[in-house]
Amino acid sequence: MTIYTQLSAADKEQLDAELQTQFKAYAADGLNLDMTRGKPSSQQLDLSNVMMNLDAYKDASGTDCRNYGGLDGLPQMKALFAEILELPVDNIIVGGNSSLTMMFDTLARACLFGVSEEDQPWQSQSPRFLCPSPGYDRHFTASQTLGLESILVNMTDNGPDMDQVEALVAQDESIKGIWCVPKYSNPTGISYSDEVVERLASMKTAAVDFRIMWDNAYAEHHIDGNLDSVNEIIAACDAAGNPDRAYVFASTSKISFAGSGVAAFASSQANVAFAKKIIGAQSIGPDKVNQLRHIELFPDLAALREHMNKHAALLAPKFQLVDKILSEELIDAGIASWTKPKGGYFTSLDMSQGSAKRAIALSAELGVKLTAAGAPFPYGIDPNDCNIRIAPSFPTLEDIEIAMRVFTLCVKISALESL
Amino acid sequence: MTIYTQLSAADKEQLDAELQTQFKAYAADGLNLDMTRGKPSSQQLDLSNVMMNLDAYKDASGTDCRNYGGLDGLPQMKALFAEILELPVDNIIVGGNSSLTMMFDTLARACLFGVSEEDQPWQSQSPRFLCPSPGYDRHFTASQTLGLESILVNMTDNGPDMDQVEALVAQDESIKGIWCVPKYSNPTGISYSDEVVERLASMKTAAVDFRIMWDNAYAEHHIDGNLDSVNEIIAACDAAGNPDRAYVFASTSKISFAGSGVAAFASSQANVAFAKKIIGAQSIGPDKVNQLRHIELFPDLAALREHMNKHAALLAPKFQLVDKILSEELIDAGIASWTKPKGGYFTSLDMSQGSAKRAIALSAELGVKLTAAGAPFPYGIDPNDCNIRIAPSFPTLEDIEIAMRVFTLCVKISALESL
Repeated sequence: MTIYTQLSAADKEQLDAELQTQFKAYAADGLNLDMTRGKPSSQQLDLSNVMMNLDAYKDASGTDCRNYGGLDGLPQMKALFAEILELPVDNIIVGGNSSLTMMFDTLARACLFGVSEEDQPWQSQSPRFLCPSPGYDRHFTASQTLGLESILVNMTDNGPDMDQVEALVAQDESIKGIWCVPKYSNPTGISYSDEVVERLASMKTAAVDFRIMWDNAYAEHHIDGNLDSVNEIIAACDAAGNPDRAYVFASTSKISFAGSGVAAFASSQANVAFAKKIIGAQSIGPDKVNQLRHIELFPDLAALREHMNKHAALLAPKFQLVDKILSEELIDAGIASWTKPKGGYFTSLDMSQGSAKRAIALSAELGVKLTAAGAPFPYGIDPNDCNIRIAPSFPTLEDIEIAMRVFTLCVKISALESL
Repeated sequence: MTIYTQLSAADKEQLDAELQTQFKAYAADGLNLDMTRGKPSSQQLDLSNVMMNLDAYKDASGTDCRNYGGLDGLPQMKALFAEILELPVDNIIVGGNSSLTMMFDTLARACLFGVSEEDQPWQSQSPRFLCPSPGYDRHFTASQTLGLESILVNMTDNGPDMDQVEALVAQDESIKGIWCVPKYSNPTGISYSDEVVERLASMKTAAVDFRIMWDNAYAEHHIDGNLDSVNEIIAACDAAGNPDRAYVFASTSKISFAGSGVAAFASSQANVAFAKKIIGAQSIGPDKVNQLRHIELFPDLAALREHMNKHAALLAPKFQLVDKILSEELIDAGIASWTKPKGGYFTSLDMSQGSAKRAIALSAELGVKLTAAGAPFPYGIDPNDCNIRIAPSFPTLEDIEIAMRVFTLCVKISALESL
């Protein structure tokens, strides 16, 4: 194979014919494969099946977990999140089954009440929010739904482009915060550098009520046996004189059961106290029986990490296969680059400008579903139409093999068309 | 015993001395009893212990309940709530473990977004809310926390005082809604009459975006083996030409596990569609494994009703004991009246004006905790200082016996003081 941009007209014509032949062959297969879903496979879920059954209903302190009460979670569940997040237990509120809900509710509180007794509700301030992209579509949807205008900033290999971020937040007091996935970022898989964390914590913001939405969704989610380390943001903000700047989130959704996990919110003690006043009017307390199930499965961080090694063992071959096929099919053509994530749930691929949508549409024609082009960008619009998110966690290796062959074929066709 | 108001001065003095002697005797006992908690006893929770263990993780339609997805709940869980609420399944959204959270979130959505695409956010309209009292303190706290000013309206034996309600809503467009517990109302235990339901559904409201918060918390919660029947509000509103007026809530909190139940929201299809658009940005879906546990325990309404008969068998003796002691100690004195609930979780007692707080404080001195005076009223203020909520579900019969003897003694002392 030759680099596409160097193909002669005749070679192009011949290649086009070959690709069309392959396309027709796949079309005849009537495939139905899905590479869109960033969710664990049933083999991964099986690792936690012991949670289906529980003998005791009292926790270590004697609390009857079946009954009402306990606004911020069982002490042992708080302790586990404290270990994961490297924070004191007093900074933590344990919630229900969804960190996304805790994020949405945290922003909704800011919109309705402001971020403290002294601050004004965001809703009345034409609020805007920084969205490092490509990023997590559900983040952007949450803030946009709440009326926060999205502002795209670029992602680098070390985190958000901090020159861009600092320039924007310094001058515009309507910019109220930024979305961050600090470890194994969704979808590029990068982890934030010490410098990026330090600059986020210490940067001057025109808004006095600026907040970092720090979604540590993949805190323990390595693929390769080595866990990345990212500096803890609340301590960093505190050290920089911005003690209330960071809202931190985590969950066991991709550790235990995706839909029946336990989520947590963490922040400064002032922020936690302010949130609890409102959450106390919203809830009598989260599901403690489910927390107890988690405590049984994960008595401490060591047990959880042993468990995450088993997840890694199931995930690694899938990511390796994605990388293998991308390499085999695309490297020589010089038409795409992609990430080699060490954790998280995604491979992120960049192809030539203006051709991602077409590649995804062609794949769909062949029965291979990929995440909608533009999904990882604010308002679902990739300004360069070049990024594609690949989610290999859920399908089998056999399905990934076929889906990736089909997908890379469509990348080639689209790239060739765009020459 | 004589009616207190007819006591001679000498009799009063003698009675006072007798009561003080009894008070001192109890004071020496160093009691520590709690009659504040409207929560099930561990015997009631034991009825659902089969939920601790679950064999399968797929529901009848083959969904792997452990994974993400299913924004509005499992079909069978929706079907169960549809039976309980006498509504089509399409009108129902199943949520997490708390109907209070669904109520708070519903009001929060109205505050932030308005109740439909066409309506304005409540937050910008100095919203007010009708609070039939005595009522449920957590309702009033939820709406007050969200900035909705509480307006007290009186409760009657058939529901809210509809003359008051109709007059208020007809003239004031800032009045955005009303709190209702239609069956076995908290705390008076009454069920709404057909006429009250009809008037709520059909009354003219100055606010076009007026909403009824219909918390059917005790839909299945009889004490005496006979379930009260209350007309279904969504159909009533629809028939009256106000199809989107009612928001309905229910949960299994006092059916299965109080802290680990399943909650539901129901409304017109237009309201459900509007809510789902926002909930879809807030959540990937509720805990389906816990729903599956409930479906196993309650395959249909008949199974659930059989289960509720067992709850009734545990609760009835407690309510009977409360009534027995109130009768023995207070009837002849003519200083209090109280409800004889046929369902729900409370006995509501009214004593002479200005003496409830004192009776509760005296009880506390003797180590018997009662719900704070005024709690069932907006802002925690009972304008007549006469209502006391008694919650006998959680303590044992032995504890109720002692607590009620102490409490009635304190009612007598307070009543005598206030003569």
